[in-house]
Amino acid sequence: MATIKDIANRLGISVSAVSKGLNGASDISDELRQIVLDTAVEMGYSTKRSKKEEHRKLCIFIENMEYDTENQFGYDIVLGFKQNAFRHKWDVDLIPVTPSFQLSEKYDTFMLRNGYCGAFLIGFALHDEWMKQLEHTTMPTVLFDNYIKKNPNVCYIGSDNYEGIDLAVDHLYILGHRKIAFLNGSLHSMVSEQRQEAFYNSMQNHGLEVDEECTAFGYYVADSAKYHVPGFLSAGATAIICGNDLIASGVITECQLRGFRVPEDISVIGFDDLPFSSMLNPPLTTVRQERIELGKCGYVILNSLIHHIAISKTLIRPQLIKRESTARIE
Amino acid sequence: MATIKDIANRLGISVSAVSKGLNGASDISDELRQIVLDTAVEMGYSTKRSKKEEHRKLCIFIENMEYDTENQFGYDIVLGFKQNAFRHKWDVDLIPVTPSFQLSEKYDTFMLRNGYCGAFLIGFALHDEWMKQLEHTTMPTVLFDNYIKKNPNVCYIGSDNYEGIDLAVDHLYILGHRKIAFLNGSLHSMVSEQRQEAFYNSMQNHGLEVDEECTAFGYYVADSAKYHVPGFLSAGATAIICGNDLIASGVITECQLRGFRVPEDISVIGFDDLPFSSMLNPPLTTVRQERIELGKCGYVILNSLIHHIAISKTLIRPQLIKRESTARIE
Repeated sequence: MATIKDIANRLGISVSAVSKGLNGASDISDELRQIVLDTAVEMGYSTKRSKKEEHRKLCIFIENMEYDTENQFGYDIVLGFKQNAFRHKWDVDLIPVTPSFQLSEKYDTFMLRNGYCGAFLIGFALHDEWMKQLEHTTMPTVLFDNYIKKNPNVCYIGSDNYEGIDLAVDHLYILGHRKIAFLNGSLHSMVSEQRQEAFYNSMQNHGLEVDEECTAFGYYVADSAKYHVPGFLSAGATAIICGNDLIASGVITECQLRGFRVPEDISVIGFDDLPFSSMLNPPLTTVRQERIELGKCGYVILNSLIHHIAISKTLIRPQLIKRESTARIE
Repeated sequence: MATIKDIANRLGISVSAVSKGLNGASDISDELRQIVLDTAVEMGYSTKRSKKEEHRKLCIFIENMEYDTENQFGYDIVLGFKQNAFRHKWDVDLIPVTPSFQLSEKYDTFMLRNGYCGAFLIGFALHDEWMKQLEHTTMPTVLFDNYIKKNPNVCYIGSDNYEGIDLAVDHLYILGHRKIAFLNGSLHSMVSEQRQEAFYNSMQNHGLEVDEECTAFGYYVADSAKYHVPGFLSAGATAIICGNDLIASGVITECQLRGFRVPEDISVIGFDDLPFSSMLNPPLTTVRQERIELGKCGYVILNSLIHHIAISKTLIRPQLIKRESTARIE
């Protein structure tokens, strides 16, 4: 692992100049500081620095996800992470990011410059600039709902989507449903792809056929329903599993608009169990993602990565929350 | 959660009799003690008891796996688990078990009677009596290389076999190999099945065809080689990936007996990186399972289960260790 002296030798400058660059002293130029930081990252200096007691700082980067109030998906994830991190005496900064922010500085350089020992990334998209950089990062990084191959410094955590969808199919099967539709979230999302595969697997394991007219990718918004629900209803579906609770709320509305009663005529299941789900009419049966546990687990895994346990993947069990939007088929 | 009083009410005996049964006092009959313990388990009393400071005891159950010396697969797994557990002030008992031992007492009852807060199970077989009981256990349990559906108290940990096999195929592909054989371990093992699927996936991702004459399930012993290597060689394989290092050692011997030089005529890759692998002739290229990390991770996950974070699955990244049993194709 590189020392300050190695960095000084590589750059042909003094040890004290390197030290100033790393510690943010004001008496060297911004240009030289950037060169020192980039070289330190390249030479793998980061991990060494992280071990100093005074730098016990972690970071949560969040994008494409709301987290300000208890109603929002990210709120409990952030809370769970912080609860566990504070208990172990870490400081945690929460930094919302945008695509342009990611273009302004390299991930590793940002981490090193700010003295973070590791980060938890929530809501990032596959095409984000930092996602590419994670393939080679030397920073301990836990990534919610996305997977990076082969880099021992990065771990994927998320809900077990296979078990979640299986819980939904199994619940409907027991209620007598045989023609089950699936309105998934967005295409090109790892989570949607897992749930799609899970749906086909679970239907097969229950001896049920998937009707291609009864599955579709939509978007993770309520509006998705109106494009697909009419087709599902004409095809004779008696139940609709939805990619999240927002979609499910749209599906319930759309069914009711078309004169179908939920759950008497058609059963609807969501995914996530956001707080509004219990307040829908009827209250929504849904697959709950345990967001506090996901956040706590994010910390536990990040701490393991910091201690050089190269975990690649960790899944949390979802739970089926039975409410009134599903019923035994008549 | 049930209290001592609940158990007393259910059984129609005094609170002090229940307490004696739970705490192993000598002035009640063995029969009554067993009834108290079984009832306590049934009523979910275990978790409550586990929180008392004086009962900070964990257990490692080990079966079908050697662990006495550094050369053996289980040694570092046990070591890693203990290292992490001791740091957090847990006592750890290591208990070798047999199928008949598992028939002598229920898993939950054994755990409760001995005051364990959680257990790490290594080397268990699918048909073991306790494996069935794990579907409904209330005891926090981490299971190495086996998966239990839907029970939030049980987590599977192991190496990422998909990534491991992909590392092996990728290494051979870069060396110019196109006709790659796979001599897997035993059929009816979750790990073997994962590696089989991983082999097909990885070959496809590399644009290579799997020749059915060049894949076989054997057993996790060196002797497996002699039944399958002749067929692989006649089919024209230039490289053989093996289910573990023992199989690979047999494969090297078998190739050499038949006049094939390793690696000049045929490349061989193992799985595990047991200490003897570097002493084979030639030293074995292999996919290393990080056993110390697996053990440490076993503790981290068990501790999370004890704190009600329902992790279902955690995978550790394997590493490719390049030695002299693989070479560029001539």
